[in-house]
Amino acid sequence: MKGSSALRVEGSSRMPSTGISRGVSVLDFVLRVMAFICTLGSAIAMGTANETLPFFTRFFRFRARFDDLPTLTFFVVANGIVSGYLVLSLPISIFHIMRSSAKNSRIVLMIFDTIMLGLLVAGASSSAAIVYLAHKGNMKTNWFPICQQFNSFCERISGSLIGSYGGAVLLIVIILLAGIALSRR
Amino acid sequence: MKGSSALRVEGSSRMPSTGISRGVSVLDFVLRVMAFICTLGSAIAMGTANETLPFFTRFFRFRARFDDLPTLTFFVVANGIVSGYLVLSLPISIFHIMRSSAKNSRIVLMIFDTIMLGLLVAGASSSAAIVYLAHKGNMKTNWFPICQQFNSFCERISGSLIGSYGGAVLLIVIILLAGIALSRR
Repeated sequence: MKGSSALRVEGSSRMPSTGISRGVSVLDFVLRVMAFICTLGSAIAMGTANETLPFFTRFFRFRARFDDLPTLTFFVVANGIVSGYLVLSLPISIFHIMRSSAKNSRIVLMIFDTIMLGLLVAGASSSAAIVYLAHKGNMKTNWFPICQQFNSFCERISGSLIGSYGGAVLLIVIILLAGIALSRR
Repeated sequence: MKGSSALRVEGSSRMPSTGISRGVSVLDFVLRVMAFICTLGSAIAMGTANETLPFFTRFFRFRARFDDLPTLTFFVVANGIVSGYLVLSLPISIFHIMRSSAKNSRIVLMIFDTIMLGLLVAGASSSAAIVYLAHKGNMKTNWFPICQQFNSFCERISGSLIGSYGGAVLLIVIILLAGIALSRR
């Protein structure tokens, strides 16, 4: 057992590409954890966004929740799916740290990363379009801004976009690392 | 033991892997041309979308153009950028057909593909959110649907999303092919 590990260390010092590949795998793991935190934080921040205005009539309370806008519901679902995927991908990432030469599992992970990137960007961008509309409105179509009334709600839904876009950037770097690791066998 | 068997497998598969790699490169080229047609078609379809209603008052004409909604302008710009990038990437794709063993250029192309995928999905998804709003409206925020009035305009902007999403799917396949080509040197 000890002998084989010594052999492996000797092997890695002889071929620097294995060392680089292991460094890439460790960085991949760290970035996945960061992306998980970003997307989960975004999902929670958006999912708990609601504001009730202090004035109300006899029949109506002025209240804004994230699920009043279907796009924001999609944002929460998309971020939830991506963060769940990122947790599930962590064991495979650890496997890649131990076995730097793994090839097929890297390709499979890379293609899922790409699909998840698409899902994450779709959620973040569609919500950004709606958040922009909530802030600025559109006079041509008579869609009036709602952020004058629901100020803290708007701040919350705007802020939760940041984590999602941060997660998307991290996923792009993760895909780049997968490409580098695949080319360095 | 395992290392030597892996070496033997790699050695025996070296001859046919060049052929597979060339096939992958040719497929990459074809998919790029298809994705270019999709994104350019989307950009043109959206960019030429406008409708003037047959009735008007003395001071006002009822007219809908894609640049009345800033998100749709972003859609046209994003699709234009991605289709321009795809044209520029074609010579590199041809270079990959001729030299299947190219490595660094594949990684560079892959990372740009990933960024362009993000841009394309961002444009398509934000526009989809706005198109959905134009169709259905949102009663909670008093955003009324505009598609009852501008029927053909709405059909046009809905249809132009298809090409953009098609281009995104093609780009995901292109990134997958890059991963396969990188692993098969």
